Amino acid sequence: MKPYENIRLDKDSTFHLYIQLYEKIREYILDEQIKEKEKLPPMRQLAELLSVNVVTVVKAYEMLEKEGYIYKKIGSGTFVTPRIGQEASDIASEKYPLDEDLRLMDRGQIQIKDHMYSFASATPTPDLFPVGDFQDLLNEVLNRDKGNAFGYQESQGYYALRESLVTYMKEYNIDTKTENIQIISGAQQGIDVIAKAFVNHGDVVILEKPTYSGAIATFKSRGAILVDVPMETDGIHISLLEESIKTHKPKVIYLMPNFQNPTGYSYSNEKKQKILTMAEKYNVLVIEDDYLSDLSFYDNNNTTLKSLDKKDLIIYIKSFSKIFMPGLRLGFLVLPTRAYHRILAAKHASDISTSGLIQRAFDLYLRKGIWKKHIHYMECIYRERFDIMKNVIEKYILPLGVQCQLPQGGLNFWLCLNEGYSSNQLYSRAAKKNVLLAPGSLFFTSENDSCCFRLSIAAIYPEEIEPAILILADVIQEYMGKGIERKNQNDSYSPLL
Amino acid sequence: MKPYENIRLDKDSTFHLYIQLYEKIREYILDEQIKEKEKLPPMRQLAELLSVNVVTVVKAYEMLEKEGYIYKKIGSGTFVTPRIGQEASDIASEKYPLDEDLRLMDRGQIQIKDHMYSFASATPTPDLFPVGDFQDLLNEVLNRDKGNAFGYQESQGYYALRESLVTYMKEYNIDTKTENIQIISGAQQGIDVIAKAFVNHGDVVILEKPTYSGAIATFKSRGAILVDVPMETDGIHISLLEESIKTHKPKVIYLMPNFQNPTGYSYSNEKKQKILTMAEKYNVLVIEDDYLSDLSFYDNNNTTLKSLDKKDLIIYIKSFSKIFMPGLRLGFLVLPTRAYHRILAAKHASDISTSGLIQRAFDLYLRKGIWKKHIHYMECIYRERFDIMKNVIEKYILPLGVQCQLPQGGLNFWLCLNEGYSSNQLYSRAAKKNVLLAPGSLFFTSENDSCCFRLSIAAIYPEEIEPAILILADVIQEYMGKGIERKNQNDSYSPLL
Repeated sequence: MKPYENIRLDKDSTFHLYIQLYEKIREYILDEQIKEKEKLPPMRQLAELLSVNVVTVVKAYEMLEKEGYIYKKIGSGTFVTPRIGQEASDIASEKYPLDEDLRLMDRGQIQIKDHMYSFASATPTPDLFPVGDFQDLLNEVLNRDKGNAFGYQESQGYYALRESLVTYMKEYNIDTKTENIQIISGAQQGIDVIAKAFVNHGDVVILEKPTYSGAIATFKSRGAILVDVPMETDGIHISLLEESIKTHKPKVIYLMPNFQNPTGYSYSNEKKQKILTMAEKYNVLVIEDDYLSDLSFYDNNNTTLKSLDKKDLIIYIKSFSKIFMPGLRLGFLVLPTRAYHRILAAKHASDISTSGLIQRAFDLYLRKGIWKKHIHYMECIYRERFDIMKNVIEKYILPLGVQCQLPQGGLNFWLCLNEGYSSNQLYSRAAKKNVLLAPGSLFFTSENDSCCFRLSIAAIYPEEIEPAILILADVIQEYMGKGIERKNQNDSYSPLL
Repeated sequence: MKPYENIRLDKDSTFHLYIQLYEKIREYILDEQIKEKEKLPPMRQLAELLSVNVVTVVKAYEMLEKEGYIYKKIGSGTFVTPRIGQEASDIASEKYPLDEDLRLMDRGQIQIKDHMYSFASATPTPDLFPVGDFQDLLNEVLNRDKGNAFGYQESQGYYALRESLVTYMKEYNIDTKTENIQIISGAQQGIDVIAKAFVNHGDVVILEKPTYSGAIATFKSRGAILVDVPMETDGIHISLLEESIKTHKPKVIYLMPNFQNPTGYSYSNEKKQKILTMAEKYNVLVIEDDYLSDLSFYDNNNTTLKSLDKKDLIIYIKSFSKIFMPGLRLGFLVLPTRAYHRILAAKHASDISTSGLIQRAFDLYLRKGIWKKHIHYMECIYRERFDIMKNVIEKYILPLGVQCQLPQGGLNFWLCLNEGYSSNQLYSRAAKKNVLLAPGSLFFTSENDSCCFRLSIAAIYPEEIEPAILILADVIQEYMGKGIERKNQNDSYSPLL
């Protein structure tokens, strides 16, 4: 099968296999190793030839089709588009309803169509943002500081904001100093900067399994070796973690101890203590990504590792994306003193400094205490959604035999179909009925599919939750019914109700 | 010399040797391998033991002193601070007038004291920023878009802004499309994202010699092997460049073809064409960092590589830091189509997206044509400074035997003392007289010192230029007089006048 048999895909690359495949085939088309109007191999056949999952080929073909390089003829296969300009994009305009890159979903990067119910995005809807307050503060800053608000800021961050954050942290029982605070342009940059400072090619990083897709991408991009340790409902599997530390001597361990993403599970206090003990014993840097500990609805177990950390072992990442506004592009790190210089150099090499204007406005937001009012407001909003969600999952989803350990707070619910079912498939089926979910494969370092999936309530309105879950229940039932039972395919059938 | 003889410094590390040394000695102090009140080895002796430049030890000691770990007793040496809290920082408060990290200077990260003349910073002064106009636009955006201005933006960038940039680029004879534009949080992030996308551990990157320190830091941080090719007054040394490409097969080549930083030199059209030919012939990605091509005062030779690039070979980085406001944290890339996917993934893993609010306001700034008025204003301002600077350098500095190829535009002047003189030394001497310059060592991949230095006019007012240059001329004369001639040390002596 020339030239396809020459394709070599690199599983260790930062780039998804389907992107590598897309690039390769496009190259062949552009330099005419594959001629115009030529038929491409059937997807399954190409997947076998390259020893990859068929999904990889599907996604590569989709991208090529979307960009007009190839087109499908119903019933006869996929062909290279003739080289006559406009015609190509006309053919391409009829494209799959599937999203081109599932991974972008996790942080709200997908285009959600009207009349879609989205449990996929963990990004709050714009109507929740304190825009009016913030606009007043922006103007206050500009009237006060004029051009200084647009000069370079110190790489470590605007001093007054670091002061405000020291005070803010006291409310969370974290005792720190301005010197130990590093301002970042959002939590994703926090992970990136830490990786730059401490993780080199070939170093081992330990992650939870499943974990946040953005962390996977960043550590992979550093050329790190990723080792994952399973999450249990009370936190990471401790003895496996210790074993992994001993075996692999990781440079860093990346954890989300409260309302973990995607599972929603929180660590028990016992496990939190054990993590601290291990961090000291094995002299390994632990990253605590705290994106949600503020949102505990039923449980006061949302102590952070950092608040328990008396020996300056933990790098703490705090994001305001879920509680304030994701577009702020602002967060901060609380650093062990020993980490300070490396982090500062890495931040400087990343983007020199975070927007001074936003830092100054957010400083006033904290100083004037407006944040307290807003956090309370967000708690109320999210708690309403959370309660409805819990109820309807219990009522409509769990009876179908779907597994879910309901969380005590946060925005995410992690559900699992029986072994052998595919959440990629479930995603496609649900998307056709206008319900979006986040398939489990997003959250694993290597698996291309999983029977689990995440539902998030950040971007769905309370009145949409029940209707959307009812649709999803139907889709699950139809899928599981077809797959295993095959006895009853009508929509109202529910074996466990 | 226990425990110092156990210190191993890694010259290939991302971290400067002095930071590694600082960390090591601090570790010894903290775990009491070096006891309180113990004398540290003389700097020269330690430098010999570790086979490093004495400057490395000086800077490490300075950092330790600044943080209170050690203190100096005049005439008797350097000692470990007794462990009694406050006392330490009292001792530490008498510190060198030298800046702790020269590298931070290049992008205005130093604290400039009052009554200092700064030729060191390449960052414009805040009074030049169009703050009023921008404030109006921010309000217009917030009133129009409300919360949407604070949601996640597309990783590739706000669509309307990409449209405006396509139009803006036409004024620079660059013909591109919205799909080929990637918004970034400033030029430094542009370099970082490109490095993430294309440079892996062990890959070769070719740079100009000297070059921008932020690029050196970023490529080093990727674990790249840096190969530098000398700059000539009409651009990079072309035959050495070709040889380097053949020998090293670089992943990328990083160039500033107009008003190069730090030299101020621009490439001849012939060299620009040759670069394009080589990029195609050797299939190597060329990065063009265009931070200043707008500021041509006397020469119309500021064509960009990208405008000549008919074969989609160049990645073009455009920053607005010098022309608009550095604190915008906004810039963009014009990408070859083949680079798009990798760049997008790298941007997403870096900080997900650039501030939507700033993107939206800047879009209006371009759409309403306000930028044209402002660029014209900046040209006038900078040209006045440029003319004065050229005159006073010709009048007071060149006659001292200092070499300088005066540039045709831009903000930087590159001057060289005779071989064997140290611009680090000159920096210290000038700083004591309140004149700051950027020593050449900032701009080299490996040299710790250089006889050359950079003077920038971005952050100095027109009326300060002549007095500051007069002081500098005195300092140079005293230094060069002492160093070589030794015959005449009185301040007014000038052998060539």
